[in-house]
Amino acid sequence: MTEQARGKQSFLLSQPPVITHWASVAGKKESEGPLKEYFDIRSSDTYFGEKTWEQAEKKMQRMALETLAKKAGIALNDISLVYSGDLLNQCIGSSFTLRNTGIPHLGLYGACSTMAESLLLGAMTVAGGFFDRVAAITSSHFASSERQYRFPLGYGGQRTPTAQWTVTGSGTALLCRGGHGPKILGCTVGTVTDFGLKDANNMGCAMAPAALATIRAHFEDFGTTAEDYDLIVTGDLGQTGKDMLLTLAQREGIPLGGKLADCGTLVFDLPEQDVHSGGSGCGCSAITLCGYLLDKLNRGKLKKILFCGTGALLSPTSTQQGLPISGVCHAVIISGGRN
Amino acid sequence: MTEQARGKQSFLLSQPPVITHWASVAGKKESEGPLKEYFDIRSSDTYFGEKTWEQAEKKMQRMALETLAKKAGIALNDISLVYSGDLLNQCIGSSFTLRNTGIPHLGLYGACSTMAESLLLGAMTVAGGFFDRVAAITSSHFASSERQYRFPLGYGGQRTPTAQWTVTGSGTALLCRGGHGPKILGCTVGTVTDFGLKDANNMGCAMAPAALATIRAHFEDFGTTAEDYDLIVTGDLGQTGKDMLLTLAQREGIPLGGKLADCGTLVFDLPEQDVHSGGSGCGCSAITLCGYLLDKLNRGKLKKILFCGTGALLSPTSTQQGLPISGVCHAVIISGGRN
Repeated sequence: MTEQARGKQSFLLSQPPVITHWASVAGKKESEGPLKEYFDIRSSDTYFGEKTWEQAEKKMQRMALETLAKKAGIALNDISLVYSGDLLNQCIGSSFTLRNTGIPHLGLYGACSTMAESLLLGAMTVAGGFFDRVAAITSSHFASSERQYRFPLGYGGQRTPTAQWTVTGSGTALLCRGGHGPKILGCTVGTVTDFGLKDANNMGCAMAPAALATIRAHFEDFGTTAEDYDLIVTGDLGQTGKDMLLTLAQREGIPLGGKLADCGTLVFDLPEQDVHSGGSGCGCSAITLCGYLLDKLNRGKLKKILFCGTGALLSPTSTQQGLPISGVCHAVIISGGRN
Repeated sequence: MTEQARGKQSFLLSQPPVITHWASVAGKKESEGPLKEYFDIRSSDTYFGEKTWEQAEKKMQRMALETLAKKAGIALNDISLVYSGDLLNQCIGSSFTLRNTGIPHLGLYGACSTMAESLLLGAMTVAGGFFDRVAAITSSHFASSERQYRFPLGYGGQRTPTAQWTVTGSGTALLCRGGHGPKILGCTVGTVTDFGLKDANNMGCAMAPAALATIRAHFEDFGTTAEDYDLIVTGDLGQTGKDMLLTLAQREGIPLGGKLADCGTLVFDLPEQDVHSGGSGCGCSAITLCGYLLDKLNRGKLKKILFCGTGALLSPTSTQQGLPISGVCHAVIISGGRN
């Protein structure tokens, strides 16, 4: 093993890949939320000019990638490799985005942890010298998620207080061997973890054990504590899941203190925007990272964060079969400053 | 870029990872086919002792991983990282397999190309020094696929002549920095490609353009031809798709000659086993590779193959919305011989 291996679940990047550019596309509700000024594209059309919500998701990813390429001053197919995935069955949002573009593509399924998973794999790919200019991207859409996981919107189902609101948006980051921007210093790969919860309307609590497992493994592997980061930011635990994570962490003697934030509570104004426990979906952490967080890191307002993408591993079929909801969480250390 | 980069879509592995062990689990029909002697576990119980077909898929993956660990003389959680995915919505076969095992996991969605995708990513991970002892695994199940993609089995729908039979099985390979066994020399990442076909009962033809695109890119990137390989083996084009690939290749002046084989036509006896155009599914290329092909490579009966995992990127939703079926194909060079 080279110097890059670091503990059981983690690796350090001796030549940290640089996030030279990033882009975000946000839906209507997200564009009315507290992070609105950080998004590149704000749309009030939930169809994004397409005929279906599933195709709208494709369109958002495409707009995000085109914006990324434009900001980087390259053509779309100068991107050497795209890591992407989404929540739709068979990840059709991601595959249709890249249809006949000629861009090499590796598809992922990490549920809502996909932004962190794609960054982690992109970092490996660039640091290992396999490809340069690798894009990590994901998306989610409120309406396509409701149709697929819960009830079609027309049904008008009542939401529980622990339910979260799937973010409509797409975020992408470009990873390069050189250049200027925030850097990925190291990563921790998550394990599939749960405490046996089965309530599909409380995914925050279902994912909290996985988030804690990854944060604990990360601290052990790197010999760090929460004090080493300006922010430990989970993907979409929402208020309920964030509270649960704090409770579990305290019980296990892992102080997270005032360092814990969650993209699901950052991206919306709770309860002003009536999103119950907060935002969720692949797009939640994607637009919060590829808008707000990377901007703060780039301007030196944040020096080092641990970005912890959280995902709930379930399907309507597994729920109907009475199975528990597992979680997974992948963590990426991102350092800021103009470097 | 290091010496590992090689052309637009490919990379060469200067320290080729070794496939030290592999394992396969096969269902009833597969265990009656021409490759039966190569499978580690043959089962005539389509439920594999579970209550549902989806859970049977989890059980197959678990049995494959446990067999792999046993063959390697290690404990299950000595596997440092698992790359896996399957065809079920939200890849629940893969996530339930690893539930609470403590093994780091990165989930993939490459449709039926997942065996090649997981090998490719595993090879990057081991060669880059990020993790050692990485398992690549995937699975499919005839009954869970029928229920999800087409009609529930109880419906008794008539199959078209171009239809394929989803393989029930799981295959896995262990990638290490040292040891003895076949080696991964290089890889080519595929692009999302299609010619606009929309017939979900003819996925072989829908995937053939993607297979050709990857094989052509591979030849260009490495400066090779079909003559440099003992076998160019696609994942699951079936007889119809294989014929289409040969036609397309001939038209474009890319001779594949007698080198082309397809796991979908190797794994079953057509038409003796009444599988129409042949086998398909993630498990098709997985058990053909992790049974038959790696055995032949290890015993020196094959010296070098290009393993081309093929995947059809569609969902019932995209089909209902009248969208075309894209394909993707990832290629991995595997060399044989006792080394």
